Amino acid sequence: MIEVALLGTGGMIPLPNRFLTSLYCRINGRYIMIDCGEGTQISLKILGWGLKNLDVICFTHFHADHILGLPGLLLTIGNYGRVEPLYIIGPSNIKNIVEDLCSIAPEIPFELIVIEQDYFTENIFELHNFSIDILPVDHSLDCLAYKINLPQKGKFDLKKAESLDLPKPFWSKLQCGENVEYHGKIFTPQMVLGRERKGIKICYCTDSRPTDEMINFVRDSDLFVCEGIYGEDEKLDKAILKKHMIFSEAATVAQKANVKELWLTHFSPSMPHPEEYLSFASDIFANTIVAHDRISKTICFSDK
Amino acid sequence: MIEVALLGTGGMIPLPNRFLTSLYCRINGRYIMIDCGEGTQISLKILGWGLKNLDVICFTHFHADHILGLPGLLLTIGNYGRVEPLYIIGPSNIKNIVEDLCSIAPEIPFELIVIEQDYFTENIFELHNFSIDILPVDHSLDCLAYKINLPQKGKFDLKKAESLDLPKPFWSKLQCGENVEYHGKIFTPQMVLGRERKGIKICYCTDSRPTDEMINFVRDSDLFVCEGIYGEDEKLDKAILKKHMIFSEAATVAQKANVKELWLTHFSPSMPHPEEYLSFASDIFANTIVAHDRISKTICFSDK
Repeated sequence: MIEVALLGTGGMIPLPNRFLTSLYCRINGRYIMIDCGEGTQISLKILGWGLKNLDVICFTHFHADHILGLPGLLLTIGNYGRVEPLYIIGPSNIKNIVEDLCSIAPEIPFELIVIEQDYFTENIFELHNFSIDILPVDHSLDCLAYKINLPQKGKFDLKKAESLDLPKPFWSKLQCGENVEYHGKIFTPQMVLGRERKGIKICYCTDSRPTDEMINFVRDSDLFVCEGIYGEDEKLDKAILKKHMIFSEAATVAQKANVKELWLTHFSPSMPHPEEYLSFASDIFANTIVAHDRISKTICFSDK
Repeated sequence: MIEVALLGTGGMIPLPNRFLTSLYCRINGRYIMIDCGEGTQISLKILGWGLKNLDVICFTHFHADHILGLPGLLLTIGNYGRVEPLYIIGPSNIKNIVEDLCSIAPEIPFELIVIEQDYFTENIFELHNFSIDILPVDHSLDCLAYKINLPQKGKFDLKKAESLDLPKPFWSKLQCGENVEYHGKIFTPQMVLGRERKGIKICYCTDSRPTDEMINFVRDSDLFVCEGIYGEDEKLDKAILKKHMIFSEAATVAQKANVKELWLTHFSPSMPHPEEYLSFASDIFANTIVAHDRISKTICFSDK
């Protein structure tokens, strides 16, 4: 399962009652963060999920409202005694940006492994038992959408295992995904597992205009977190000008991509009550939630 | 008069109920800020004093908790339509630091006039009717204390004015501090004003060990805002190690310098209830306040 929370739901400016948009995911006790604006660490402290096992911070792009909180977060993590390396991934040039920002935080006591999108193999980053896909999207500067994938192995098939010429103590290794060599023969997990089951997919797209590639990228995801900078359709021109999306556009992507649930976020500071515009999205895609800070959800495997 | 507020009272890490230490002053409708950490702009929004007429941002030093909020603040000011230049002052190298931080905020629509301490004339920066003095203090890296001075002119002396060979319509110019030339003769403000009266002085010292120079610098100030990272005397060794001050040290500076009032700030995140330690300071300097976020005060001229 994946536990997911939005640390903030604002765009551009952090407000007293609305932090900037940032996603936080817990998978088997490890954490992934996407975007970290000014104040994100405060919201995380309120949420109370902890920081110790944060493995990866992903950045969509280099506008201040998505990345300015990084040095403060890294220093706070350092204060908590971290020594293991931490991955930072994002668009081209992220190494320089992180270096510039960390000029005021030179004493971070752990290694940062910064990976630019160009160094991804087939746009996929893998760690532990999950993977993260990226997709370049259409904003006013280089910007990435993210997809977090948690695959689910097939069920253990007792009959298959019993049919192998392999003692029982080795079965759990195969079940955990490891190969086993026994009496000169290689046994693979597939030999004891049933068909691979549907995993969990969470997608995060902000800031961008809608694109066909985005629809394909988020297809069939369990949760689609998407920007909706303005609620009303009347503000489409303004959104186009600034390379953002309005509620109805995000809902159209959700509907075309057949996602299970849509969370709208990254609201303009000019929109103090985004929930008033829910119908602009829900008329197109019913399972829409106008998100609020620290909304959270546990997503379980549906294929049992 | 000067209206003064502390936007935050924390050190190191912004907390849900305590923003990072930053001072905000209003003098005749113009604003001065000292330090701007992550989240400072959120606290300012809660305080509600406005940003439009912010003229100067002063930085004590380049630890993240004192400067990381700058790019976000500048972008927010830009969103409000500012076009006039804004002064930024601080220790040597502040130009490079501001440039690094603003790599994620390239579209600031107004000029930044960044002045490093080395370019101050006699450690004084003058603007409008106030001036700002700096003093290098004793921290783990270059760090400045600040003093905001608002002088008060002498009273208008009707008898002196009447004794001059100058028509009445010119008197107000002299009263406002301008020279007047009339019939080939120069008239100066001193010719119509009484003795110069005591102005207002506000001092801000964080982060630093106490020093003799600091005592001289803050002498007789109306308000002395000073760090007190720990409350108990037992934590002196830890404070010395990190080049900070504890409550009793700040109070000793206040007492020796004969200031009117002391506000303690920059509390360690390990001290959730700093007010519990008030007596460590007030036993030494009675008029001590353990500050809280957005504490504010109007300081009027005392010499009437």
